[in-house]
Amino acid sequence: MAAIGRFQKGEDIFHAKIVDGEIFRLYGDIFGSPTFDKKPTPRKGVRTLVPIVPSKVIAVGLNYADHAREQNKPLPKEPLIWIKASTSLLPDGGKIEIPHPAHRTDFEAELAIVIARKIRNIPAASAARYILGYTAAQDISDRHIQNSESQYTRAKSFDTFTPLGPYIETKVDPLDMTIQLFQNGQLRQNSHTRQMIFNCYDIVSFISTNMTLLPGDVILTGTPSGVGPIKSDDTLEVRISGLAPLINTVK
Amino acid sequence: MAAIGRFQKGEDIFHAKIVDGEIFRLYGDIFGSPTFDKKPTPRKGVRTLVPIVPSKVIAVGLNYADHAREQNKPLPKEPLIWIKASTSLLPDGGKIEIPHPAHRTDFEAELAIVIARKIRNIPAASAARYILGYTAAQDISDRHIQNSESQYTRAKSFDTFTPLGPYIETKVDPLDMTIQLFQNGQLRQNSHTRQMIFNCYDIVSFISTNMTLLPGDVILTGTPSGVGPIKSDDTLEVRISGLAPLINTVK
Repeated sequence: MAAIGRFQKGEDIFHAKIVDGEIFRLYGDIFGSPTFDKKPTPRKGVRTLVPIVPSKVIAVGLNYADHAREQNKPLPKEPLIWIKASTSLLPDGGKIEIPHPAHRTDFEAELAIVIARKIRNIPAASAARYILGYTAAQDISDRHIQNSESQYTRAKSFDTFTPLGPYIETKVDPLDMTIQLFQNGQLRQNSHTRQMIFNCYDIVSFISTNMTLLPGDVILTGTPSGVGPIKSDDTLEVRISGLAPLINTVK
Repeated sequence: MAAIGRFQKGEDIFHAKIVDGEIFRLYGDIFGSPTFDKKPTPRKGVRTLVPIVPSKVIAVGLNYADHAREQNKPLPKEPLIWIKASTSLLPDGGKIEIPHPAHRTDFEAELAIVIARKIRNIPAASAARYILGYTAAQDISDRHIQNSESQYTRAKSFDTFTPLGPYIETKVDPLDMTIQLFQNGQLRQNSHTRQMIFNCYDIVSFISTNMTLLPGDVILTGTPSGVGPIKSDDTLEVRISGLAPLINTVK
């Protein structure tokens, strides 16, 4: 496997691997040892869905040194986590809806981890073997609500506020990835995962000491500096090295 | 239907209605028009599970006037919500595990709502028809972690921190229920749902304007005054009028 996506054709929903833009249907358990069609599925009428249906979507706050400097905040001593509603997930190509146009609503490009196995209390040194892969994400945030109450969940859980995808890449190094966000073709966020205060393995280990993680659970690993407001008709593109771009528009 | 539970016998997991302590197996969709066995299933070897597997567990903070007074806090103008990990769910009879014995860890008795249908933006006046029923819950909280960071999710999402059950009661009035917590037989919390600042219908309506709710989603509606620390070997019993008691011990 390398890139795995989830697709829909009519009523039929299936996982597939993606090779040179063609999709090869997956059979069996994507967390186990699946087999694949030898012939690609014709793309006509096939929609791209979010690549996984997680039991939970966990987000990490203030995890890039450049973003912490930009916000004039001290570096956190432990990852700060919260959970976003899984109903906020939006596939590649989907439209982000701004529920309160009078509220400042921001993009936040993030690298997302997809968990492969049920885990609890695992050390960072062995985290890699419990990770299925990585995909691009956004943690869209209603800043007015976020600044007016103590808990982040509501400001970040509106439907369409978690673009995720398009595919899960299983063969990439999360310690060495550039992460960028383009708004209407303009570069707005531009960083590297080495700017992370807690790297992907630290994060998986830390969260696993606080709760059981299940196969398919998604962890958003925080956003770098440069966050900014979105507006109707924007095109937002998250580009992370080694991953397919995640492109969404704003309604 | 009146009371609905979820059970396991060997590898077999099923829903059933409970009548006079006997369980009658359910067939079909519990959110639709299920049918039931005419004969009860023998209880031998049958374990009680959490009554539902939710896509999300939403909690509401500071929602009882008596609890707000006790905490010397002003009444909130809107419900304050966050999401607990669904991996923290614990059935009736299960053991609560304290992950950090040096941290004060509190019981919090709560009434839980179970959603019946996919809903978004519904008014409080029609909320009742989208609710499957009600069950008892606890929102166990590691106060040390809760007070040391801004987000509540981690302090309240350890495995076993959300006792829920035993059954979903479909024929009760959530505006007229007493709610009590007994610790080793001693009454610690004793209130009434009329003390709620936002009643169950207000809460479902409010949350539905912030995110889509799915069938089976669970909402914990806040705890009344009297919360206190738990310790090893405690027996904790949540008694809510019209519902079966939720009884858990502490490991």
